[in-house]
Amino acid sequence: MKKTLLMLALASSFAIADEGMWMPQQLPEIADKLKTAGLALDPASLTKLTEFPMGAIVSLGGCSASFVSDQGLVVTNHHCVYGSIAHNSTPENDLLANGFLANSFSDEVSAAPGSRIFVTKAVDNVTDKVVDAKTAKLSGKKRLDAIEANEKSLVADCEQDAGHRCTVASYYGGLEYYLIKQLEIKDVRLVHAPPSGVGKFGGDTDNWMWPRHTGDYSFYRAYVSPEGKSADYSVDNVPYTPDYHLKIATDALNDGDFVMALGYPGRTNRHRLPSEVSETFQWSYPNTVQQFKDSLDIIARETANNKDAELKYASRKAGLNNYMKNRQGMLDSFANSDFLQRKTAQHQALTQWVNSSRSNKKAYAKDLAEIETLLKKRHEQNRAEYLLNNATPRLLGLARALHRLTHENTKPNAQRKAGYQERDFPRYKAFIAGMERNFDVNVEKAFDLHNLTKYASQNKKQRNAEFDKAMGIKDNMSQQQLIALIDSWYNATGLTSLANRQALLQGSIADYKASNDFFVKAAIALYKSDLKQEAADEELAGKIQQAYANYMRAKIAFMQSQGEAVYPDANSTLRVTYGNVRGRAHGNEDGNAWAPFTTLRGISAKATGEGEFNAPQKQLEAIAAKQFGNYKVDSLNSVPVNFLATLDITGGNSGSAVLNGKGELVGLAFDGTLDSIISDWDFNNDNTRSIQVDSRFMLWQMQHIDNADSLLKELNIL
Amino acid sequence: MKKTLLMLALASSFAIADEGMWMPQQLPEIADKLKTAGLALDPASLTKLTEFPMGAIVSLGGCSASFVSDQGLVVTNHHCVYGSIAHNSTPENDLLANGFLANSFSDEVSAAPGSRIFVTKAVDNVTDKVVDAKTAKLSGKKRLDAIEANEKSLVADCEQDAGHRCTVASYYGGLEYYLIKQLEIKDVRLVHAPPSGVGKFGGDTDNWMWPRHTGDYSFYRAYVSPEGKSADYSVDNVPYTPDYHLKIATDALNDGDFVMALGYPGRTNRHRLPSEVSETFQWSYPNTVQQFKDSLDIIARETANNKDAELKYASRKAGLNNYMKNRQGMLDSFANSDFLQRKTAQHQALTQWVNSSRSNKKAYAKDLAEIETLLKKRHEQNRAEYLLNNATPRLLGLARALHRLTHENTKPNAQRKAGYQERDFPRYKAFIAGMERNFDVNVEKAFDLHNLTKYASQNKKQRNAEFDKAMGIKDNMSQQQLIALIDSWYNATGLTSLANRQALLQGSIADYKASNDFFVKAAIALYKSDLKQEAADEELAGKIQQAYANYMRAKIAFMQSQGEAVYPDANSTLRVTYGNVRGRAHGNEDGNAWAPFTTLRGISAKATGEGEFNAPQKQLEAIAAKQFGNYKVDSLNSVPVNFLATLDITGGNSGSAVLNGKGELVGLAFDGTLDSIISDWDFNNDNTRSIQVDSRFMLWQMQHIDNADSLLKELNIL
Repeated sequence: MKKTLLMLALASSFAIADEGMWMPQQLPEIADKLKTAGLALDPASLTKLTEFPMGAIVSLGGCSASFVSDQGLVVTNHHCVYGSIAHNSTPENDLLANGFLANSFSDEVSAAPGSRIFVTKAVDNVTDKVVDAKTAKLSGKKRLDAIEANEKSLVADCEQDAGHRCTVASYYGGLEYYLIKQLEIKDVRLVHAPPSGVGKFGGDTDNWMWPRHTGDYSFYRAYVSPEGKSADYSVDNVPYTPDYHLKIATDALNDGDFVMALGYPGRTNRHRLPSEVSETFQWSYPNTVQQFKDSLDIIARETANNKDAELKYASRKAGLNNYMKNRQGMLDSFANSDFLQRKTAQHQALTQWVNSSRSNKKAYAKDLAEIETLLKKRHEQNRAEYLLNNATPRLLGLARALHRLTHENTKPNAQRKAGYQERDFPRYKAFIAGMERNFDVNVEKAFDLHNLTKYASQNKKQRNAEFDKAMGIKDNMSQQQLIALIDSWYNATGLTSLANRQALLQGSIADYKASNDFFVKAAIALYKSDLKQEAADEELAGKIQQAYANYMRAKIAFMQSQGEAVYPDANSTLRVTYGNVRGRAHGNEDGNAWAPFTTLRGISAKATGEGEFNAPQKQLEAIAAKQFGNYKVDSLNSVPVNFLATLDITGGNSGSAVLNGKGELVGLAFDGTLDSIISDWDFNNDNTRSIQVDSRFMLWQMQHIDNADSLLKELNIL
Repeated sequence: MKKTLLMLALASSFAIADEGMWMPQQLPEIADKLKTAGLALDPASLTKLTEFPMGAIVSLGGCSASFVSDQGLVVTNHHCVYGSIAHNSTPENDLLANGFLANSFSDEVSAAPGSRIFVTKAVDNVTDKVVDAKTAKLSGKKRLDAIEANEKSLVADCEQDAGHRCTVASYYGGLEYYLIKQLEIKDVRLVHAPPSGVGKFGGDTDNWMWPRHTGDYSFYRAYVSPEGKSADYSVDNVPYTPDYHLKIATDALNDGDFVMALGYPGRTNRHRLPSEVSETFQWSYPNTVQQFKDSLDIIARETANNKDAELKYASRKAGLNNYMKNRQGMLDSFANSDFLQRKTAQHQALTQWVNSSRSNKKAYAKDLAEIETLLKKRHEQNRAEYLLNNATPRLLGLARALHRLTHENTKPNAQRKAGYQERDFPRYKAFIAGMERNFDVNVEKAFDLHNLTKYASQNKKQRNAEFDKAMGIKDNMSQQQLIALIDSWYNATGLTSLANRQALLQGSIADYKASNDFFVKAAIALYKSDLKQEAADEELAGKIQQAYANYMRAKIAFMQSQGEAVYPDANSTLRVTYGNVRGRAHGNEDGNAWAPFTTLRGISAKATGEGEFNAPQKQLEAIAAKQFGNYKVDSLNSVPVNFLATLDITGGNSGSAVLNGKGELVGLAFDGTLDSIISDWDFNNDNTRSIQVDSRFMLWQMQHIDNADSLLKELNIL
């Protein structure tokens, strides 16, 4: 892709040097570039998962982290351990507000239930086993089912080694599969977190923004059984001894220096087809943003004079706002870019290359056409179902899921549909209980009316006959009729009560059949058509898997013919991205630029003494007194707080260790900038910057403000 | 000074490369530095005032400008011709709002009365004539009088060449004097000015600010008699043919490029002594800022419900605000710097050097001690008179000046005190008339009460007995008594009437004696002590001139002993400053930096459609349509508007031609940034940036928005 981009966009080779979320084993392919960028280590050393430095890199499941001592001390972002801090907070001892510091191992407290540290032990290419000779001949739903069965079998074999979690991850749109074996550390304890006025300084206001001053770091410790095995919490457990741990850099980090981030990026879409880009940015995201805006309006209106309802929807409101900011950010970037034109040109170049030789044509031409047809079908289907899906009341969704669960429960666990297995049970329980704090009938009725009005205004052919029948929807319903209809649903359901929902979770198929609850009856009425729709979806998905893998095969062959190494889209597996510390020529306004580092001065400037900018008084006093200790950088005349780099990261990279060319820890990645969000689709080297907390700030705060001496000793700082 | 600064402040040699307002004849001394910085011309060519490029550089008296065609076309800042635009504006034809464009020479209109273009023809060192052998032996007032007499004589001889204005300028605190002969072009016509929405875009809000988007350019044309001589306006006059004129650069100007500004900087204080720095920044400026704040409060309070009074004080209010922003800016910079420590250390180094050898000691030691004693005396005197001066009512000031004028009028013109000669008459007339639009008795009474309260609260010894007697001030006056006293003054004066003021201007000494007007009587009562005070001031000034010149002689000898070239402080004479186009590592907030260029995007972003940000609709449409013509810079993806450079400029440099290394015009200097203001005292290369309007923006606006085709042809652009 790089050379293609180069040809099409006239970008300088320098400007595209930093794109790429590389699988560790790929690094020798780009050894020259890594050396040129400033890597002092042998790139081959980065391929060894249990050696330095990869042996130190771990996943928290959704976040990245790293070992920083031989006693299982793990550093990651404050926002990655936020739930664990909250879990241990009480009104009397508000750890979120005050921070937490265990001065000895015995003072450490358990992380939130379900907290895990995953240490990747092996990554093996299992493509031939997932799509074996027999599966390769299948198509549609049968192909999908065979793949799922092969994956389950590989995972089951792998997990024979107790204490490990195994997964099969798909790469290059299903062209390759890898079996990933991870040690699953279950006894995770909170060691240290700064106050939220440091760790979350700037809050939502500064989220995705630069200049940034967030001390987004915290520490966990991994515990295992005395035998060194994965174990649930026990007082007898001992700190885990990692294969390797990172050392904090002693060399100063400067503008332009080489850096690399090691972590688990979640999902990117760099290899998507032009039709997918167009569908996403010209239909899906704009509709999503509009729907979010409408939802926020409804929440504001319906909770205006109702504090209880307001609290119930506070979290959803924050989520909607966050997502909307994200999606709108991408839409703005898209509007100001030639991304679709470039993507289209790239795809045309690929198509020309495919058509340029008989062998290429034979190998790829059919699937290249086929994938377009299949994606078109999927997009049409998504559009057709969009208003229907929106118009589904939450209680109907719940009733359908629980009803399906009851049916799946009649099968042996291993044969149940994914999402309806024994291990999913706790999630349903939590969901049902959680509704007590996030569900208000009046607000839901308002959502339903808003969505149903749009759905019902379609003509009969556009609507779904089964849904209409189950819900009582007819042609040309007036607003009054819709209101009355919705009232009738809620008048005939008991699912607004926790006890009834819990009873339903325990219910048998017979119990369901006997139910007089409106939503339960609707779920049963829709069951058959739901299953039919699911099978049709899977048929299409199976075909897409097959054609998409072949499209990617063509694309990789094309790019390699141009002499370019190709990295797979992010899929929550271990990756390496490299780049440099670098500000940006254009900042938030015309004529401004971004400096690569922020400093303590910015904390004082932003501090308000409350809310999102509630910097601790002691910290502000130390800043005012210029008490910088050994962490002052003369050129900044202060201590660096956050820094920008050209690292290619995305969600999931949060907490990633950022290392210098010698493999020493210089910071933790924790965010990107708003106009970098589109990099999930289109990496733009001029714009894209990752935001890191500087390890010097972390140490300064720990030493001069939070007195974390024991930890600093463990880190070999004091 | 440079090396001293280097030693003391540990600044890199790079960081101080751009300080210096060099006299053209000094440039060969720093030829190596100029070449290194990027000057392609021979530095010696810059010493020739009537050749390229210096032959193109002119003064407007307070502003700088340059010839840009062989038909006398002059380019300068919009704010330098603002008065001329206003002068030609009517309610029906608001040239300020709409801009002005003469499509032919006959459409050009006369600039505001008194507008001048000064073309420097010769600069000669006349130190030996100003301080001749006889004068050198004098001291105090006698010395000052002799210097003034010598200067008058030199000027009179020089001005024998009709149409020329000659001045003797003092350099290095009176150590050197130069006779400057300038052709005085009196027929100045306005050719083109963009609308204020371009030329003053950003108004006071953006004043001294970056990012900046002001199209601060306009055009005059110089006219002379058919014989090529200076002449008052006449339809027979013809465009002046300058010795040389500048060409607009065709090479692109980029970040880091060499630039130099040629113009007439007004006043700097770089060679001041530590005691002067301390007195200014620790006493004078803080008191001034407080006094301005108080005055603004009084204006706000007293004009609150009086539109007429509000309008009368609008200009003063703007001036006070402007000055206050300036002085406060300097105070802020001072507070955040080690300027006084460095200055003190420099002076200590100088003192050590003076004491390091018998010959140095003999030559300089006495004056080095003497100047401190004299400055201390002046500072004490300033402090002692501060409240008295503030407490002088405006009408008393007027009466004193007119009374003095009447006395001076009895002498031959040449012997009259400077400021009271025939050529000063129009200024008095204008002042007297102007009071109709800037004087309100109630507001003045409020000023008087405020200032008198402070003055009168001093004990008798601190007060001035003559002033007290003349004004009726006694010990321990209550606020009520002061109010009554002030009322009594204004009840007993006719000077609030224009006719009475005008009559006073014409009055004889006898008329004054016969007057019953309170302020006139007070002026007469104070006359003797005023003259006595003046003589005492001049005695001190004469001593200071002598000692200061010797201090500067010592300082220059010291600096030259360190191998450093020394430039004199600015004194409104022609200077050259060089540097580079350069942004800044630290911007307005922590983590931001300044890009070196702004672009058209910033205009659209700031435009509000009214007030200070009233960008013309046509311009906004062209920006939206990306109608960039040949002026687009690819790396900016727009047209550059303003740019930053490390040029060492100050007030008076406004309109200065900024040239590239080949001597081609790339822009016009028009401002500095707020934290650059202190550079009048202390040049800080990290902070100090000049702001220029980019010639590409000027041409873009003229070509694509204002259709200034005839002018563009004259500039060889079309």
